[in-house]
Amino acid sequence: MPTLDTLNDPNQLRALSAEQLEELAAELREKMIRTVQHTGGHLASSLGAVEITLALHRVMTSPRDRIVWDTGHQAYAHKLLTGRREHFHTLRQLGGVGGFPRRSESEHDVFDGGHAGTGVSIAVGLAAARDLSPAGDPLRDQRIAVCVGDAAIQTGLTLEALNHLGDAKHRLLIVLNDNEMSISPSVGGLSTRLNKLRLTRAYQETKSLTQRVLPRIPLIGRPLFAALAFTKEGFKRSWAKVGFFEDIGITYIGVLDGHDLGELEQSFERAFALPGPVLVHVKTIKGKGYGPAEMDSVSFHGASLPPIDLCLIDPTEEPLPPETEPRRRPKTYTAAFAEELLRLAADDERICAITAGMPTGTGLARFGARFPSRLFDVGIAEQHAVTMAAGLALGGMRPVVALYSTFSQRAYDQLVHDVCQNDLPVLLAIDRAGLVGEDGTSHQGMFTLGPQRALPNLVIASPKDEQELRDLVVTAFAHAGPMSLHYPRDPGEDLPDREGEPLEIGRGEVLLSGGDLLLVGFGPIVQRLLRVAQSLERQHGLAATVINARWAKPLDEELIIAQAVGRRLVVTAEESAAMGGFGDGVLDALNRAGIRVPLLKVALAEGFVHHGAVEDLRRQQRIDAPGILAQIREAMGLREPIVRPDSDEASSVSAA
Amino acid sequence: MPTLDTLNDPNQLRALSAEQLEELAAELREKMIRTVQHTGGHLASSLGAVEITLALHRVMTSPRDRIVWDTGHQAYAHKLLTGRREHFHTLRQLGGVGGFPRRSESEHDVFDGGHAGTGVSIAVGLAAARDLSPAGDPLRDQRIAVCVGDAAIQTGLTLEALNHLGDAKHRLLIVLNDNEMSISPSVGGLSTRLNKLRLTRAYQETKSLTQRVLPRIPLIGRPLFAALAFTKEGFKRSWAKVGFFEDIGITYIGVLDGHDLGELEQSFERAFALPGPVLVHVKTIKGKGYGPAEMDSVSFHGASLPPIDLCLIDPTEEPLPPETEPRRRPKTYTAAFAEELLRLAADDERICAITAGMPTGTGLARFGARFPSRLFDVGIAEQHAVTMAAGLALGGMRPVVALYSTFSQRAYDQLVHDVCQNDLPVLLAIDRAGLVGEDGTSHQGMFTLGPQRALPNLVIASPKDEQELRDLVVTAFAHAGPMSLHYPRDPGEDLPDREGEPLEIGRGEVLLSGGDLLLVGFGPIVQRLLRVAQSLERQHGLAATVINARWAKPLDEELIIAQAVGRRLVVTAEESAAMGGFGDGVLDALNRAGIRVPLLKVALAEGFVHHGAVEDLRRQQRIDAPGILAQIREAMGLREPIVRPDSDEASSVSAA
Repeated sequence: MPTLDTLNDPNQLRALSAEQLEELAAELREKMIRTVQHTGGHLASSLGAVEITLALHRVMTSPRDRIVWDTGHQAYAHKLLTGRREHFHTLRQLGGVGGFPRRSESEHDVFDGGHAGTGVSIAVGLAAARDLSPAGDPLRDQRIAVCVGDAAIQTGLTLEALNHLGDAKHRLLIVLNDNEMSISPSVGGLSTRLNKLRLTRAYQETKSLTQRVLPRIPLIGRPLFAALAFTKEGFKRSWAKVGFFEDIGITYIGVLDGHDLGELEQSFERAFALPGPVLVHVKTIKGKGYGPAEMDSVSFHGASLPPIDLCLIDPTEEPLPPETEPRRRPKTYTAAFAEELLRLAADDERICAITAGMPTGTGLARFGARFPSRLFDVGIAEQHAVTMAAGLALGGMRPVVALYSTFSQRAYDQLVHDVCQNDLPVLLAIDRAGLVGEDGTSHQGMFTLGPQRALPNLVIASPKDEQELRDLVVTAFAHAGPMSLHYPRDPGEDLPDREGEPLEIGRGEVLLSGGDLLLVGFGPIVQRLLRVAQSLERQHGLAATVINARWAKPLDEELIIAQAVGRRLVVTAEESAAMGGFGDGVLDALNRAGIRVPLLKVALAEGFVHHGAVEDLRRQQRIDAPGILAQIREAMGLREPIVRPDSDEASSVSAA
Repeated sequence: MPTLDTLNDPNQLRALSAEQLEELAAELREKMIRTVQHTGGHLASSLGAVEITLALHRVMTSPRDRIVWDTGHQAYAHKLLTGRREHFHTLRQLGGVGGFPRRSESEHDVFDGGHAGTGVSIAVGLAAARDLSPAGDPLRDQRIAVCVGDAAIQTGLTLEALNHLGDAKHRLLIVLNDNEMSISPSVGGLSTRLNKLRLTRAYQETKSLTQRVLPRIPLIGRPLFAALAFTKEGFKRSWAKVGFFEDIGITYIGVLDGHDLGELEQSFERAFALPGPVLVHVKTIKGKGYGPAEMDSVSFHGASLPPIDLCLIDPTEEPLPPETEPRRRPKTYTAAFAEELLRLAADDERICAITAGMPTGTGLARFGARFPSRLFDVGIAEQHAVTMAAGLALGGMRPVVALYSTFSQRAYDQLVHDVCQNDLPVLLAIDRAGLVGEDGTSHQGMFTLGPQRALPNLVIASPKDEQELRDLVVTAFAHAGPMSLHYPRDPGEDLPDREGEPLEIGRGEVLLSGGDLLLVGFGPIVQRLLRVAQSLERQHGLAATVINARWAKPLDEELIIAQAVGRRLVVTAEESAAMGGFGDGVLDALNRAGIRVPLLKVALAEGFVHHGAVEDLRRQQRIDAPGILAQIREAMGLREPIVRPDSDEASSVSAA
């Protein structure tokens, strides 16, 4: 990569010619595509943001100036330009370059992100800090920019930040990276407004003028933005005013072509010259430089690249999976959930579903295809999703809100106040509970189980396999109050499809009986406990009882207490933060019953869990079967037996 | 009350004459004022919403039609008109009428509220449910209205709901109850926009026309809205279009005089005739009918009412305290916090403060008066408050965000993702931790400690008294990472003022030594443990060690473990939900250390805690000193001694 390979600092970008920049943009895209084929990742958004990245780094002097990437999944070009080029092949792998900005990787990363909609608030805070510095301090000239997507800008958090900023008037550039692919007509009034804007005459005229005039201008050896002075007439016309942003006090510039580097640079410079907050509305093409729509117009130096499906409809964009050997994968928990929901909804018209901008990821897209009027996609608005569900329940419906565990944190107050306080029959489907892998720190589903345990009226379940998930979905709709149902991103146990059957709330089950130890698991980790029990038997002659708790609340205290009495060790297992979780509930129940047996709590260790393959992370956390077995050995003072690698004993805990 | 006393159903309102309605409005106001003098309460907002309430109940048929009161503190007139007139004197008292709508009280209450900004989402859910009912179902004509204040409409939750509604187009009336007293110039760009609107010519003209024409029209015996046909010219002019709401797809009508019943009714009727969502912007006077500004113009049938200070600047309005004997109250924790912060900020320019619309309640108003540029009032926007604090910290500042415990639930994800994941030096001042009393169910600070315990990088403290609170404020600003500091609404221990001193993080202290029991408390409940220890000694001859834990995280495990060994009972005490809280942390630490002593966890019982005086609620929950003592007696099988009421033994636990 002749141009990219010469760049070790983003401030070298200002010395490049227009031709070199064009070359660089193509190289960045090629590098991203080649990497993501092997690592998986959020490719399309980052492809769309290449010119925005170049323009920001050319008009700003990072790290003195601060570039905030909202969500962070558009930052691959930024990463490649700020010292991570040589390690980029380790993207999203254990110990490698992370998928989102990380301050530990580079001084050019301002903020460790991952959740949508945080960027404007962060930038407002940075700008407020800058504006408090004393007169004469060179910091006062600091430029601050935040790049936010059209889906993320509609989060309540960002709307709060914009509302405050419009009044506080801090000098700040907001780049609204608006790629039409991420917007579905169902998502938000503001989207409709943005869609209308794209169709305005002023924008169309600018576009066509740019397209007609630009190719005829000799660009060689001159910065692209200088060349663009010729297009001033068309450029000016795009400085439209938009009611929404202007109404709340933010100067609006747009709509610009997000792949026209010169236009971007000139607008950004003008924005920074203004005394208050400016939003520059930029239209980009998601997946720019790749995919059927783009292949013809872009040169990849003759590289032949296999097609990747970029038609991703989630606003937050599901990351592309890495290229692997094609093999049949068992049905995921998500798919089993979606199928059971669809089956029940066919017979019960009260069942409706809400997604916060993730119809595909949560499996609800199929529900929407079958029952379009009963699926509500509210955009990235978890708070509204949960409170609206409370309203639907008050109106006699049986709503399910399907959220990723980590994103459901946004709706904690709504769960407490709107759903539980009102004791409403809302099913909270907590997908991606537990470790999610390569998306890393911000995305692990580990901080939702504990907080939910304290909530009155809520029942909380997690299934041992995908069949039991179907049972729990049936159970939820037969229950008159709120229920939270946690299940992982993982594939299931490859069990045959069958219809769900109602289960008794608060009733666990004994899967295996043995007199020495008691192993109690919450969720699919129970499968690992069964393997651990086998190993304990074979390797140490210890017999274990294994309980599938099913319910974290109400806990089956009767069963657990009866089984715990007289054991050498009780082991609890969950894939969630250790403090305040399922294990603490078991410990509390045993204490209240006056049963004082040693208890080993298997859970995620204190601290955040970073990116890597789920299996690697489970090994690292010692919550895979061998790790759990090792923890039990330590707790009981057992020595690890020496076995031949091909023996039965070794193989029983070989699969995580 | 000749008119009010005849009303047993809100649907009787339609039969009243204009004169009777005017009379009724005055009676409602008098009833509210006389009640709140004795009970305390959110008077001003409810006084301002009297005519809105009458108009909604006249154009709607509750409970078939649904009236949602956002936040719920404006609903006193609604309560008086819907069957709670005779019990209204029990307002906010234990077992009495609640301060917010409660479904258990009346079929006319749609939703149990208390937190600002939930109403529009609830109404969207109700409307979506209605619009899913089959064609021909009489439910399809159901009218749904939500009344929301100008501060609450700026919450992220409501903005998300409006954004969705603008696209979903459900037929729905949103009454924006805009009382200028609640808006401070610092709160939000949308406020500025609303302020501008109030000053528009159209609005001014309508007002003056109404005022000139109306008094001359004979109103007797005719509905007021019929009379208003004469003012059509002026009325029409007020149907202005507003960019903000129209931009996101919601029809806007306004600005109307919120105390002109006829104008309100006519507008509401027109709004319901439209096929989609309509926002009616209504200007009201907070405290209408009372206070210096209003006293002259309203007749109270000769009643002489003492003045109440209605100049409340918090958007959510601090409730008025009940009328009590004037006595010197010890300095509150809030005041001690504010003083110490002020002292430190004088020497450290990096210290800045953020409030989410509660400068008075959190004690930050004084900070703002002294350091206006360093106080950020972001409005009711807890999410943005916390993420902006992260941004300020990234910019080198030392921000404190002061939030009420219950409202901080809105910012849980921001605490996890923006503050803790980024390990930033943000001080989260959690005011109103524990029971808050008369505001009831939605306001108790009981669901924030547990969820915080699992968060990496966060340290969590609570002081035993107001002097230690000063120490912990000093400690927080000397600490390089995030800290959460919990303190109650209560007055302190009446200790002398002194400057705070830094404490060691994670280090508790032994306050009393004794060999039989170990009592470990988190926060001011430690004072009760000291009284309990005295009683145990005097009544049962049992010696207790009392530990002030100070830190819930990191827990002083070394101290607690060393002291727990060999005790007959370990007692943990906290004023928070039992599951996943401080006590579970102690139990977990003892279990890991292999110390298996009986442990009694004193905390709030499973379930919500409703309204009542804090002392009554503590007694009910058995977390006052006598209650804790009784729980210990039960755990140890001790019999309560028979003592004379005036003896030392009785008096030692007499104060809660």
